[in-house]
Amino acid sequence: MFAVDGLLPAIRTRRAGRAFRPDPVPAGLQELLWEAAALAPSHGNTQPTRVLVAASEPARQRLIAALNPGNQHWAAAAPLLFALAADPAHDVTIDTPGHSPRELYPLHVGIALGFLMLQAEAVGLTAHPMAAFDEAAASAAFEAPPGVRILAVVACGFPGDPGGLPADLAAKEASPRDRLPREHRVGIDRWSAALSVSARALRKRGP
Amino acid sequence: MFAVDGLLPAIRTRRAGRAFRPDPVPAGLQELLWEAAALAPSHGNTQPTRVLVAASEPARQRLIAALNPGNQHWAAAAPLLFALAADPAHDVTIDTPGHSPRELYPLHVGIALGFLMLQAEAVGLTAHPMAAFDEAAASAAFEAPPGVRILAVVACGFPGDPGGLPADLAAKEASPRDRLPREHRVGIDRWSAALSVSARALRKRGP
Repeated sequence: MFAVDGLLPAIRTRRAGRAFRPDPVPAGLQELLWEAAALAPSHGNTQPTRVLVAASEPARQRLIAALNPGNQHWAAAAPLLFALAADPAHDVTIDTPGHSPRELYPLHVGIALGFLMLQAEAVGLTAHPMAAFDEAAASAAFEAPPGVRILAVVACGFPGDPGGLPADLAAKEASPRDRLPREHRVGIDRWSAALSVSARALRKRGP
Repeated sequence: MFAVDGLLPAIRTRRAGRAFRPDPVPAGLQELLWEAAALAPSHGNTQPTRVLVAASEPARQRLIAALNPGNQHWAAAAPLLFALAADPAHDVTIDTPGHSPRELYPLHVGIALGFLMLQAEAVGLTAHPMAAFDEAAASAAFEAPPGVRILAVVACGFPGDPGGLPADLAAKEASPRDRLPREHRVGIDRWSAALSVSARALRKRGP
């Protein structure tokens, strides 16, 4: 499905693995992740992305407690846990007639997260972002002020042996990446009916 | 400021340039950009990102007309223009007590855009995303259905000679990248007052 030649190796090989080696992530590699996120662009250079690192054991435990149970049992084994946060007031909101205002901070945090994930892959780390967490608890874990949003919690470390995972998760690690066929994600000159089909709807239809 | 050693070259060298060579972007390279975006991860594999390519001259002109005047005069010279869009109904929204619901689609589109930008850089292309556009006009340019949101319009091509740009934009191309000092973007274990300072506020304080 995908042309391998020419794809950036970090994009080609990246998987959001759930098995980690226990080795800590060296401080120098952590700094590369924060720098990769910082070098992501933002409209008007608003730079809304904040990295919150759960370095101490108490901070780690608070952040793990904020994760959904489905993530807790594997993510707790990651040697490095951190969150990406933003204060929406730091960024631009564009009024859009007929729609909710277009807030730019989640797009900007997403770009930074994309850069960070590929940087991680390039130095041999897995950075697995999670969206399913109790935001109030994650925010409280870092004593973030009321307006601040937590957009992702990331489990990071050197990839480990999936054999140590529960069987259902080990199977996920080994499965091929499942992506929409091109016609459902690329439109030329105009929208098409295929673009309106969600990935979930397509999976329900089956192969 | 930034440790150069170890940073992914595409992250280290990327700039959102405004000067383009007139040469078209070969179809094969365009496909690499769409594949890079598709390989970005999404929570629950929702894959909300849609790429809308303004390939024909009429579609191009409609999309250019949707840009803010400040972007029109340089972006119109880009050989390739496209938009990133999403239908929020294709993606997950997480209810968050005390906050607006956390919609995941802009974060997911951001990750895909980050992957796409770095893929562009890796093959020698500049992909310059813009957030300032008339969303209704951009949507109409592609005849997108009412619910679909346009999150970014991207001007893309091989980097050209900034000497051909107006003086103010040419100066921007030559300026160093300006990023927040680390203390304003990375917090260890807890939020800090420095994280609450926006990039805009820091610029107003001056050096």
